[in-house]
Parts: sequence; structure tokens; C-alpha cells
Amino acid sequence: MVVMDQVTFIPTVDQLTYTFGGAAAVMRVRPGTVLSLWTEDAYGGRITSRDDVASTALNTEDLNPQTGPFWIEGAEPGDTLAVHLVDLTPARTWGASTLIPFFGGLTSIPVSPTLQDPLPERTYVYDYDAGTHTVGFDAQASDFSVRLPANPMLGTVGVAPGRREVRTSLVPSDFGGNMDTPEMTAGATCYLRVNVEGALFSLGDGHYRQGEGESCGTAVEGAMHVTAIVDLVKGRGPAWPRLETDTHLMCIGSGRPLEEAWRASQVEMIGWLGELYGLDRLDAYQLLTQISQVPIANVVDTNYSAVTKIDKRLLPPAPAYDGLHAELRRTASSLGSIDY
Amino acid sequence: MVVMDQVTFIPTVDQLTYTFGGAAAVMRVRPGTVLSLWTEDAYGGRITSRDDVASTALNTEDLNPQTGPFWIEGAEPGDTLAVHLVDLTPARTWGASTLIPFFGGLTSIPVSPTLQDPLPERTYVYDYDAGTHTVGFDAQASDFSVRLPANPMLGTVGVAPGRREVRTSLVPSDFGGNMDTPEMTAGATCYLRVNVEGALFSLGDGHYRQGEGESCGTAVEGAMHVTAIVDLVKGRGPAWPRLETDTHLMCIGSGRPLEEAWRASQVEMIGWLGELYGLDRLDAYQLLTQISQVPIANVVDTNYSAVTKIDKRLLPPAPAYDGLHAELRRTASSLGSIDY
Amino acid sequence: MVVMDQVTFIPTVDQLTYTFGGAAAVMRVRPGTVLSLWTEDAYGGRITSRDDVASTALNTEDLNPQTGPFWIEGAEPGDTLAVHLVDLTPARTWGASTLIPFFGGLTSIPVSPTLQDPLPERTYVYDYDAGTHTVGFDAQASDFSVRLPANPMLGTVGVAPGRREVRTSLVPSDFGGNMDTPEMTAGATCYLRVNVEGALFSLGDGHYRQGEGESCGTAVEGAMHVTAIVDLVKGRGPAWPRLETDTHLMCIGSGRPLEEAWRASQVEMIGWLGELYGLDRLDAYQLLTQISQVPIANVVDTNYSAVTKIDKRLLPPAPAYDGLHAELRRTASSLGSIDY
Amino acid sequence: MVVMDQVTFIPTVDQLTYTFGGAAAVMRVRPGTVLSLWTEDAYGGRITSRDDVASTALNTEDLNPQTGPFWIEGAEPGDTLAVHLVDLTPARTWGASTLIPFFGGLTSIPVSPTLQDPLPERTYVYDYDAGTHTVGFDAQASDFSVRLPANPMLGTVGVAPGRREVRTSLVPSDFGGNMDTPEMTAGATCYLRVNVEGALFSLGDGHYRQGEGESCGTAVEGAMHVTAIVDLVKGRGPAWPRLETDTHLMCIGSGRPLEEAWRASQVEMIGWLGELYGLDRLDAYQLLTQISQVPIANVVDTNYSAVTKIDKRLLPPAPAYDGLHAELRRTASSLGSIDY
Repeated sequence: MVVMDQVTFIPTVDQLTYTFGGAAAVMRVRPGTVLSLWTEDAYGGRITSRDDVASTALNTEDLNPQTGPFWIEGAEPGDTLAVHLVDLTPARTWGASTLIPFFGGLTSIPVSPTLQDPLPERTYVYDYDAGTHTVGFDAQASDFSVRLPANPMLGTVGVAPGRREVRTSLVPSDFGGNMDTPEMTAGATCYLRVNVEGALFSLGDGHYRQGEGESCGTAVEGAMHVTAIVDLVKGRGPAWPRLETDTHLMCIGSGRPLEEAWRASQVEMIGWLGELYGLDRLDAYQLLTQISQVPIANVVDTNYSAVTKIDKRLLPPAPAYDGLHAELRRTASSLGSIDY
Repeated sequence: MVVMDQVTFIPTVDQLTYTFGGAAAVMRVRPGTVLSLWTEDAYGGRITSRDDVASTALNTEDLNPQTGPFWIEGAEPGDTLAVHLVDLTPARTWGASTLIPFFGGLTSIPVSPTLQDPLPERTYVYDYDAGTHTVGFDAQASDFSVRLPANPMLGTVGVAPGRREVRTSLVPSDFGGNMDTPEMTAGATCYLRVNVEGALFSLGDGHYRQGEGESCGTAVEGAMHVTAIVDLVKGRGPAWPRLETDTHLMCIGSGRPLEEAWRASQVEMIGWLGELYGLDRLDAYQLLTQISQVPIANVVDTNYSAVTKIDKRLLPPAPAYDGLHAELRRTASSLGSIDY
Repeated sequence: MVVMDQVTFIPTVDQLTYTFGGAAAVMRVRPGTVLSLWTEDAYGGRITSRDDVASTALNTEDLNPQTGPFWIEGAEPGDTLAVHLVDLTPARTWGASTLIPFFGGLTSIPVSPTLQDPLPERTYVYDYDAGTHTVGFDAQASDFSVRLPANPMLGTVGVAPGRREVRTSLVPSDFGGNMDTPEMTAGATCYLRVNVEGALFSLGDGHYRQGEGESCGTAVEGAMHVTAIVDLVKGRGPAWPRLETDTHLMCIGSGRPLEEAWRASQVEMIGWLGELYGLDRLDAYQLLTQISQVPIANVVDTNYSAVTKIDKRLLPPAPAYDGLHAELRRTASSLGSIDY
Repeated sequence: MVVMDQVTFIPTVDQLTYTFGGAAAVMRVRPGTVLSLWTEDAYGGRITSRDDVASTALNTEDLNPQTGPFWIEGAEPGDTLAVHLVDLTPARTWGASTLIPFFGGLTSIPVSPTLQDPLPERTYVYDYDAGTHTVGFDAQASDFSVRLPANPMLGTVGVAPGRREVRTSLVPSDFGGNMDTPEMTAGATCYLRVNVEGALFSLGDGHYRQGEGESCGTAVEGAMHVTAIVDLVKGRGPAWPRLETDTHLMCIGSGRPLEEAWRASQVEMIGWLGELYGLDRLDAYQLLTQISQVPIANVVDTNYSAVTKIDKRLLPPAPAYDGLHAELRRTASSLGSIDY
């Protein structure tokens, strides 16, 4: 990777995509390319004030727009796509979260309906202060206000699914997608199994901050500047998305009910522990029992997502994918300060 | 609470109990009493070496023995029992974890059976080193070994259920019980709704260490020295167990599927935010969406348990239960060093 | 069984019980005894008109009263209790069904709460006409009325649970209980595993009619005259309740989520097919795949219940439990006409 | 509909499709057209003897081939497509059912994995006897054999999904698809919401017989001759598939866990009762509680499917969709005897 490609892509509204699979690649890039991107928010930019309520402001066909897809040269089914998030910087001075009728974790939803009325709608606009790196919450029924640390993350990172499928960008699954985990933050490397030639990778759904579970269904949603490096490992494609940071290994399962998402993430991690430490599945199961962290990602999307997370510091060093994460970190450092 | 009662109770084998509700109180104590207790491990002490496999060594009628129940004077249905864990100290130099046929999160189980064969059995004995405060894991199919920090906790803290029920100590529910969360550690105060006169509180199931989810169904199980202070708040009994530490507020829901446990914990926390900050339920829902942590407790018990957790430092100070946790911490400090 | 015991028991209000396990036997009876019983409705008789709404009329501690428990002489853990329902006759000229806040299958419920408001309450009183054997439904928001065939059944038949537990009569589980299946009707024999000495069998929760699923949580609830014969098979206690009629074999699983109840009922039936036809579990699985009927029982109780049902006429004759059902049918016939 | 179009379409292997959405229409037909079709079995015809085991014989990319899609002229999003099944006749003298590793209702599956080994594989070939209209089951581990009545049905009937999605033909959802209900038989009319222009309707997955639940994941799978009439109702597209026979109304929900599929089917039926009888949702909820039948469709596919079913004879006559089903039945009768 002596010569790095650097690519900037800021999609126009017409270039935004709304699916994993099914959209033509916006460009072809080589493994090792540094992508400098911009992502629109999950509302398609249609929520700009407290008066914009979801049921009237949103275009339900155009939710969660993605930047991409990118055709990764040489990527073939069964390979591993690595996406290293170098930097995530809020691209607006505010983000928004909305209570949307019959959407969210504490309301009935169309696929599990009740006869109850929907919750009232409310839209919350959080100002983002780059200086303090905080977002501001203001209650609407009382005068409570509080500033919260910003924690920029991407709700959605994914590749085209297999089995000829095209899925909306609202879905998390084994191809990644709308996993909505606060772990998808700058400094993390996401490993995804390639399902179709070229991988057809895209990302979006910036959150300036999100709690685990994404209870009401929408985080502090905002447009984002994204710097990422894509890389390719031949073969070794994981069954479920994996995530690595300097300190942790993570696997992300998605499904319903929530315990099935958990099981998928756990078995994936047991496989990873086997790869890294030569443990058989029973020993890995036992070890995982004592060291697993399980920060839930979302309980609101079409599938729910659960993270199985291990603190690397508990275990002997064992570089995953031949040390690819560390290498990508070094490459990221070499980029110097990032300015949008 | 000028004069504190101090009580020591180390049950004989015959005094161990196996249910919440249905057992006679071992003693009556006043609110404010400091309890110095000993708890047997979840196996009833029957697993002592790698050769003791669960299917033959265990007495399935006598699992998860509890120390108690204690009759709390003045406790009436609807009240809040506060149990502050002052100290948890391993009472043996080893703990054990077992793969039990058709039990655990990554096997079929009797209430959700498949036609597949059970997993092989294995028993792992972890030595506990008090000096380094670590436990040692040794793989059985390869020569991998690692020492892990001990993190003593109680799997089970509960009161008698309502509706005339008696539940085994294997069950977590709204009365507490076998929640198996690593958050139940020294320094935490657990708030439980009183369901019957006297509350009939008991605890047990010491774990020297456990990961979130308790994947295989058994943590590093070990006998434990427990120092706890019990206290009583008249009325205000929560619908689901709450937990408070110096830094966090937590609510614990239990149920199946896992998302129902999560929902219960979330709605309980929304109620608590309302009590503390005067937020209406929609504002609390919105705020929780951005600040919630969700470390799963267990996905292996009769009910699954999920924790909704909030970092107090994100919010303005607002003492819960009139500052009871801080008061119990001060009382705990006044006890001086604890020696078993 | 030359000499049959015949026992009549009509409980006073004070003699009603509300749990499986935990209540003293109302009498001891020998296997083969004919019981002539009366059961109060699930409301404890507190709903008598459209103006009695559940939230104010009901005593939530005294729901679903049971008639019993009966101590069956000679019954030991592991045995099979057979309860043959000879006759079910409505004991009132009306039954009632209520929409209860936060209870039922199409509303959020306390163990899986949302932030939505409850549904409005409504109480429906169905007159029962013994001549036409019909019940009358009258809509409340329009003038629609229809008469429906009565189909008397018992929501609740059960024995004391094991593991020292006491469960409310609202719960269905492996001990039977509140399974709420329309299959529990006159002519059926229910087989239950005995968990404690004496079995401690009771029944109640008469429904003059119920659809599968019991959608809103309450059927056409009414007091019932019940004639039943109890009998005992030594050993051979099934893991889950079984039901036999002249035409069908059934197994009833209870749990959450609903697929787990289904799995339990299916594996139980695979075991039964093995007992009757010598099929190994894979052949029985295959055969069941092509002949299984799955009429859901309830999706509203603490556990959901699913029935796996097989039409005997599809298979060669193979008397279950040595032809006990046919024998009980003959005994029932010998009783002549039943008059309450 | 004085002049009827009649179309015959027998796909070549290359014309088979494997998705809902994403495939080009094989032809355009007008509402009212009689389609005479042939469908390949779900294995793509690759299982022909007991020696063909799934793990080696199948092409996992080419499962569940569909005949279609057909572009229905005039069909627009929001419309209702009616598919009346005139006749289903087995097109081979045998069908096959297979135990496939990690697939089925009583094994762990990839999206909810355990660490257990897979079940052994077995392939069962059922001969189909047109004279007796039966299929023959032969056990493999013992000498048990039995002939079962054939009950030809289609596992899969569907249209293109909305939201730009393409789904494999293995999935049941709100667009229909792989619902696998034994109710999808000759004489039934299926109503589906149109999601894209032209509807893009296809069908396949013939079963010579299937039990409710499709326990092991595969019915008696076989190629089928299908005669169907397609028709169009402008607007009024249902949220979930509906089914009508001379005697019953049905709604089919699909999702996970199974209770969510049930809820969807129930709320859909409540809406239908409202349309037909002017009942408000609470009255319809109450009435449904007493008359609902719930024969489970499948507990093995990517989504589970549940049927809510009502016997028309319990209610006053109220022709759905202006009597379309009866009209299609008359048209079907006018076709005379069907010969393939």
C-alpha cells in the first residue's frame, strides 16, 4: 500500500441510494483507498425544526439514504471487506430525533400491531456545539435541559446481500446494514463478508449520539463527514459482521427475537476466539461465558442487533486478520489532520 | 439509624432454601441491620473438581441455594426494600463453571427443545487467588491458559413474589431472584418492591466472575462471604428491580423473549427519570434513547434479564429515594475493614 | 374398577383456590372416582353486567378460582394422572367477556410494556340459551348481533408443579394450568405428569365458547357444572400435558415466545408417536411434518400455549396408555344421563 | 369478463425465478386471465431418490423456483391482486421430503445457532397414487408404512415487495411469498396488496401434502400443475395476505417471533370484520376472540406464518370484495374439466 488512492465523494440528492444491493456502483475503488465522504441524515434532510413532525415531513420511500455503493476491485463472494472508520465529524450544527407513530421500541409496530392508539409525535432538535463537542437536549413538557457529549457514529455500514436479494437500508442483517450500534465509531474497523462481486459497499445514517438500543427508533440524526479506508482480505468472510478497535473485538448479530441476534453474535465470537487462540468451541464457549460484554445495539429496526464484545486486554495478544486493524490505524495516522 | 443492628448468619446445609416465597424466615431483622452472611454456591457445593460433571454430581432439586429468607420488620406490600451490598469476598480458593446438558444459551433447552444431541459435558475449575484477585481459566482441548480479574457478584437477590406464588431460586422476575447481572456487586444498592408482609428477602449464587449474558449458564460459581445492609422505604415500590451505584442508575427487567425484558427495564427507567427530573414519559423516552446503556444480564435462565443503565454523570444530581444510597455508603464506610 | 366412587363437591367461596400447589387438598379420592363438580368463573363471579368493568369490579388477587385440589391416592411423582371430562354444562344463563386494560393479545402488557395508553374497557355479556345451546354476541358501537354455538370447555386443568413451586392459576406450564385451549372439552382425556405426592389436581375457568388464541384474554367466561373421572397410570408421566379424544391425539406446550410452546408440543408428540408406533425420532419428525395440526390455544396468558394435534384416523390403531381413554369413555357412558 | 384470456406457461429451467421482485416479467396478462401453469418443486428437481441428501444434492442458490412473474395489466401500488386457485394437480408420481442440516423447526438454525451438531440427514420419497389420491410414507429406522390422503397446496404465492426490495422466494412476508400454509389449496382465492406497477405475481413450491407448521422444513414437495385465475380490485390493498374459500375467511401474518405473525393476522382480520360488518375495532376484537381459528402455517421459514381463520357460517352473509370469490368460483366452474 505504498501509493494510496484518495477519493472524495459527496453525493447529490439524486445519487443517494436506499438499498443494499440493487443500486449501481457510484465508483470503483481499489483496496487501500481512502474515502472522504459525506452522508445525509436518515430523514433525507427533511426534519429541520421542532415543527417538522415525521408523519407529514418524511418521504417514507426515501428513508435512511446511503452514500455509495462502491465497487471494490477484486472483491469476490467469500472475501472479507474491511472498512476502517478514520474520522466521523458532524456536518451540521444540529441533529434531530423524532417520535414517529408506530415506530420505536416502546410502542406497538406494524409487524407486531396492537389496537392501541399511537404515541403523540414530537421532534427534538439538538444543537451540536463543535467546541465542546456536545449536543443539547431540551425537554418539551417541562423546562429540563442538559448537554450531552457528542459521540459520532454510523448507524449503517453494509455490503450487498447474497441470494440475489435487495434490502432496504433500514434493515440490519448478516450483510451489515442498519445495525445502529454506538460501537461503529471513529477508530473502528468493520469486517464484512463479501456476497457479490465488487462487494458494493455503502454507508450512512450518521448519529451525533445514540444510546444502546436506540429506544425510540431515532438517535440524534445528522449529516456526517466520513473518512474511511476500505481494504480487502481474500477469503475468510465472517458469517456475521465483526468490529475491531484498539481495545476490543466485537461481533454483531441481527435478528428477531433479540436472543437470536445474541446467539448469532456469540457463536460468531466463539469462532473468532477459535481462529485467534486455537480454542475448540466448548473451551471458547466457556471462556466467553466469563468475559463477554453484551451492549445491545438496537431493539427498533426490522431486525434487532446485539453486540458480543471482548476486551482484548483480558487475553494474550493475537492479531486478527494478520494485524490489519493496526495497519489501518497506522495508515490513518499518516493522513495527518482531517479537514472537511 | 443511630444504633445499628449487626447480625451474622451462616446457614447449615439444612437451613439453605431453594425458593422465593414458601420458606419460613430464618430470622427477623430491623431496617438498618448489617447482615454478615455466607452463601453456598449454585451447585450446593457438589462440584469440586473437573471430574464432577453436572449430570451426575448435581441434585437437580437442590440447585441455587439461598441464604435467608429474612423477615424485615415493618415491610408491607408496596414498600421498597433496599439491599446495599457492602462487601463480597470469595469464601473458597476456587470456583467452578460447568457445561450442563440442555442448559445454557447456545444449546437447545427443555422448554425450547430440538431433536439434537446435547453438547458434551465439561467442568472447569478456576482457582481463585486472593492476592492478585484473579481467577484462572485452563482450556481442556488445548493448552491455553489465562488469568482473569475476579469480579465478585451475586447472581440472586430477591424477595417473596406476590399473587401467593412460590418460585424456585432459579427464576428471575419482578421480585428479583436469579437475575445474574454482573452489576450486582459490592457498592451497589438494590431496590425491590415488597410483595408480602416482612418482604422475606434472601440472596445467594455468588459468582467470582461472570460475563454479560452468562452464555453457558454458569459463571465462576463459588461460595461467598456477603456483608449487606437492609433498609426500608415506605411505599414507592418499583415495578421491577432497580440498582444504584455511586455512578449509575439501573433497572432490571426479566422475561422472554429478551426484548420483553428490555422493554420492562426501559419503561421502569422512564418512570424513574420522571420521578427524579419531572420529565413526562415522552421526554424521558427521548432522553433515554440517547443515554441508555444496555448490558445484558442473562440469556440462560427461565426468564432472560436485561439491564437499562444510565451514567449519573450525564445528568444533574438528583438523589434517588432521598439519598438513601449515599447514606448506606456512609454507613458501610463506618463499618471499617471487614474480616470474615 | 367394578365399584366406582362418586363424589360431589361444590366449593363455597372460601373453598376456592387460586394456585397450583400451595393449597391444602379439599379431599382425597381414589383413582377411578367420578367427580361431580361446580366451578366459578374466572372473574370470581364479579362481572354480572355490561356495567361491571374489569378495572373496578375485579379483585386482582382472586382471579381464576379453582375447584380443588384433590389428593389422588397413590399418585407419586413421575406417574400419569388421567382426567377424563365426561360432561361440561353451563351453570348460568349468561357468560361474560371483558376488555381489561393492559391485558390481552392485541395490547401492550405489563411484562412487555409500551408507553401507549390502554384500550378502552368494555364488558360483553352473552346470554346462554340451553335449548339452542348458543350464546349471543351484541356489538356495542353498532347494532350487530349474532348467536354462536356454545362450546363448553375448561380453560384450566392442572396439578401441583414440581421444584417446590406454587404458581397462580393464571399460568399455563408443564403442570397444565391455564392452557386455555378449546380442545379441553367434554369427551377428552387429559394426561398430566404427577409432580408431588397426591398430584393435587384441580380445575376451573369454564368457557361457554372460546376461539383459538383467546385474543382479548377472556372467553365467554361462565360458571360450569363439571363431571370428570380421575384415574392414575403408574409411571410414564409425560413432560408436557397430553390430550386424547376419540378422534385425536394432542400435546400442549406452553412458553414464550410462542414458537417455544410449539416446539415443546411437537417434541412431546414425537415422543408419543415413538411410544405408539416404535418410530425413531427422525421418522416421527418426518411423519409429524406431514400430519400435524397446530391450533393455537392462547397468546394472552403468562405463557402462551400451542397444541400439536394428530387425527388418529390417519394412522393405524394404537391404543395410548393401554386403551385408557376408551375405557374411561365406556365408564362415562355407564353413568347414564347427567343432571345437575 | 365476457371474453376470458387463457394462457399456458410451462417454464424451462432457465425461465425459473428465485425472487419476489427483481425478475423480469415472463409475460403480461390482463385481469381475468386463466393461467395454466407448471411449477417445479422446491428442490429444483434435484431430489429424486432416498439417496439424494440435501447437503450434497441441492444448489443452495437455486432453491424454491417460482413460475412467473406475471405483469398484471393495470395493477398499481395499493390495488388488490386476487389469485384464485382453480386446480392443483400433482405433476409427478412422487414427492420428496428431506431433513436438511440446520434447517427446520426442531433443530438449531444459522440465524439462531447453537453449538450442537446437526441432525442426521434423511430423504423420504413419497409415491403419489393419483387413483387413491394418496401419498405413501415409509419409515427408515423401522418397517412402519402408512398412506396419507394427498392434499395438494402451494407453499408460495406472492407479488413483488415494496420499498425497492427483492426477496428470495424462501421468505414469507406482507407480499405473500413462502407462507407454507395448507390452506393455500384449490378453491381458495388469495388477495395480495400490489406494491409495484404490474404487481409481478408468481407462484410455486407445490406440496402434495403438508402438516401445519411444516415441522422439519419440507413438505411432500413435488412439481405441480396449477390452474389459476388472476383478477384485480382497484385500491383496497390489504396490509397482509388474505385468503377466502367458500367456507372461510383467512388472514396470514408472517414474522418472528411467532406471536408477531399471529398479531399481524389478527389485526388484519379485525380490519376485515370491520369492512364486512361495520364493527368498530373493539367489537371486532371481542367477536374474533370467540370465533377465531388459528392453524399455524410454518415455524421453519425466515419468517414464521400464522393464519387467523373464521368460519363464514358463524356470521351473516357479507360478500368480501363485492362477491369476487363467488364470481371466480363460477368462472372456474365454467372452465369444465381440467386436463394437463
